[in-house]
Amino acid sequence: MKNMKVVDFAAQTASAEPVPGGGSIAAVSGALGAALAEMVANLTIGKKKYVEVECDMKAVSKKAAELRDRLLDDIQRDSDSFNDVMIAMKLPKNTDEEKKLRTEKMQAGLKIAATVPYEIACDAFEIMPLAEEVVNEGNKSAVTDGLVSAMMSRTAVLSALLNTKINLASIKDEDFVSRLNKKVKELENKVKEYEEKILNKSPY
Amino acid sequence: MKNMKVVDFAAQTASAEPVPGGGSIAAVSGALGAALAEMVANLTIGKKKYVEVECDMKAVSKKAAELRDRLLDDIQRDSDSFNDVMIAMKLPKNTDEEKKLRTEKMQAGLKIAATVPYEIACDAFEIMPLAEEVVNEGNKSAVTDGLVSAMMSRTAVLSALLNTKINLASIKDEDFVSRLNKKVKELENKVKEYEEKILNKSPY
Repeated sequence: MKNMKVVDFAAQTASAEPVPGGGSIAAVSGALGAALAEMVANLTIGKKKYVEVECDMKAVSKKAAELRDRLLDDIQRDSDSFNDVMIAMKLPKNTDEEKKLRTEKMQAGLKIAATVPYEIACDAFEIMPLAEEVVNEGNKSAVTDGLVSAMMSRTAVLSALLNTKINLASIKDEDFVSRLNKKVKELENKVKEYEEKILNKSPY
Repeated sequence: MKNMKVVDFAAQTASAEPVPGGGSIAAVSGALGAALAEMVANLTIGKKKYVEVECDMKAVSKKAAELRDRLLDDIQRDSDSFNDVMIAMKLPKNTDEEKKLRTEKMQAGLKIAATVPYEIACDAFEIMPLAEEVVNEGNKSAVTDGLVSAMMSRTAVLSALLNTKINLASIKDEDFVSRLNKKVKELENKVKEYEEKILNKSPY
C-alpha cells in the first residue's frame, strides 16, 4: 500500500472497500509525523548556529527514519490484521462443532485485530519525544513543522487505539479485554498530555 | 506531489528540502480525513438498515469527494505558496531603491504564504460537519473511521493555521496581520470544540 500514489491511496480509502480504513490512515499519519521530525532534525544538522545540538539532532534523524519505515509498513499491516477474522467469518456453521470452531477462530482473529493497532499506536507514540526535541532544540525556522509532527503523531496514536477498542468490544476473553483496555486508556491519556505539552511550546 | 508514491512522499518530507513541509502534510491529512468520511458514507449507501439516511449519505459522499480533490491539489499549492518569497529573497539589495523593491516583493509574497494555508485550513474545516454526520447517522460498524476523519481534519486545520501564523510573524502590515490573526484564532477555537463534540459521540 505504501507504493500507491497519494492520490490513488486517497481514492481507495474513499471507496466502499473496508481497507484501507482508519487504522491504515493512522499509520500514514504516524509516518508523516515521523518524517516531519526527521526533516526538522535534518534542517538543523550542519548549521553553525545549532552546533551544540548536532549530536542530538543526528540521533533524532536516525530514530525518526526508523519509525517512518516501520509506520509505512504498518499501513499494510493494519489492513491485513483483520484477515483472520474475515477468513473465520466464512467458515461453515451448520453443526455445533462447526459453530464452536468458527467462534474460536473468530475470537483468535479479533485478538490479532485488536493487538496490531495497539502496536501501531505504540510505534506512533515513540515520535512524541522526537517532536518535542526538535521543537525545543531544532532549527527555529522549522519549529511549526515540529509542532505539526506532534499533532500528526497524536492523531495516529488515538486513531489506532480506536481500532483496538472497536475490536475489543467483540472479544469475550474478559482478562484479555481488561488488560488491553487498561493499556489503551493509559496511552490515550499520555499522548493527549504529551501533545498539549509540546503545543504549549509554540511561539505562535 | 499528489502523484508521488506514499513512500516517496514521506521520504521527500523527511529530507532537508523545505518542501513538502507542515503545510503540505496538513493538506494530506485533510484529504485523508475527507476520504474517510466519504468511505463511511459509501459503506452506508445501499444498506437496507440505513435507508432513512440514504439521501444524506449521498450528499456527504459527494461533498467529501470534492474536498478530497481540493485538498489533494492543496498539497502542491501549499508548497508553491512560498515561491514569491523565495524569488524576492534573491533580488539584489545594493541600492536603497533595490532594497525597497525587495522588501515590497517579500512582503507581498509573505501575504500569499500566509493566506494560502488559511484557505487550506478553511477547506479542511469543511470536513468536520461531514465527519459529524457519518458518526451520528452512518454505518455503525465504521463509526471509528468517522472519528478518525474528525481527528485528521482537526490536525489538518491546526497545522495549516500554524503555517499562516509563522508567516504572519514577518508581515509588517498591521491591519492585515490583525485581521488574519483574528480569523485564525476563531477557526482554531471552532475546530477544537468541533472535534471534541464529535469525539464525545464515540461509543468506545
